[in-house]
Amino acid sequence: MACLQKSFTVRTESHQQVVDISAQVAAVVAEAGITTGLCLVFVPHATAAITVNENADPNIGVDFLRALKKMVIEHDDWLHDRVDNNAAAHIKAALIGPSETLPISNGRLALGTWQDIFVCEFDGPRTRREVSVTVWG
Amino acid sequence: MACLQKSFTVRTESHQQVVDISAQVAAVVAEAGITTGLCLVFVPHATAAITVNENADPNIGVDFLRALKKMVIEHDDWLHDRVDNNAAAHIKAALIGPSETLPISNGRLALGTWQDIFVCEFDGPRTRREVSVTVWG
Amino acid sequence: MACLQKSFTVRTESHQQVVDISAQVAAVVAEAGITTGLCLVFVPHATAAITVNENADPNIGVDFLRALKKMVIEHDDWLHDRVDNNAAAHIKAALIGPSETLPISNGRLALGTWQDIFVCEFDGPRTRREVSVTVWG
Repeated sequence: MACLQKSFTVRTESHQQVVDISAQVAAVVAEAGITTGLCLVFVPHATAAITVNENADPNIGVDFLRALKKMVIEHDDWLHDRVDNNAAAHIKAALIGPSETLPISNGRLALGTWQDIFVCEFDGPRTRREVSVTVWG
Repeated sequence: MACLQKSFTVRTESHQQVVDISAQVAAVVAEAGITTGLCLVFVPHATAAITVNENADPNIGVDFLRALKKMVIEHDDWLHDRVDNNAAAHIKAALIGPSETLPISNGRLALGTWQDIFVCEFDGPRTRREVSVTVWG
Repeated sequence: MACLQKSFTVRTESHQQVVDISAQVAAVVAEAGITTGLCLVFVPHATAAITVNENADPNIGVDFLRALKKMVIEHDDWLHDRVDNNAAAHIKAALIGPSETLPISNGRLALGTWQDIFVCEFDGPRTRREVSVTVWG
């Protein structure tokens, strides 16, 4: 088994935003040089998340964030808003989750044609969102 | 470490549906012949997802799809509907996620008594939904 | 590669509750004695789930459970309520998912400063919720 773990950072520009990190993750997979295995993509943050969906139409990310805003209303008497005023961001991050695990086949991420990897920013803008990629196989 | 990666396809019959794939995933785990390890179940699609829940009462799947329809309203002025008219399916797929990772113990998936593995179809019917299973340990 | 799989149980006190299991998971990682790798945290239950978020303010868990109650209304004519009267718990468990996979770096879980690991109880109280931890690297 080979195992490679690398991190990179992402800058976000808006309060809520999805950022396509597919190319950065693919570069770590290529560097690992393994044929068959898995890839864990993880954010060490409690107000950001990782998900996978289509970026060929970037409006899917816009729709996704709008849907989450309807599910989790901002400042809806959340108790944590008294401390940090960002409770909705924490709730969304817990709902989507901080990681995705993806298969590697033939030395590449075995994503579908319409799948891209997103960091979901729920409490930006932030200068440094860290993404940890662990590849093994 | 042994690692086995196999795919199979699922046909869906309805616009929205959960399909129990527990037996097909268990067959890949049995073929791998490993004692302790992990199993990644992944769909390479942006309008389908993987989740785990009870199928002893198949109405749980029906309730789950109905709950998602209430959370993500179809054709609610989503921007992606102008392109493909299936934005709600993409949003649900991003919310549930394309994979689950499950433990293997004593040569078998260590699922609970009331846990089955589902492909969630959000934009069917489709003749071929692919499921990728990676087992290692 | 080293692989260690261990289980522990959690008692829940309320109908819906998040329980911080970060210390128990960290103890399994420490026992495994690996430097770089991954950790799968899994509940073999269909009315409980695993998520990751901040516990420095325990009200985040309270807010998270309240948000889920708004998304998935209890006894909203769910079909499974006719069998077991706990359909909302199943729906929430399917939505959040039974597992999280986390990176290990420098012999420790590479969680962020504001990340803790939670078991989400949606149908308690229960005397025994099992948590399975698989570490490899």
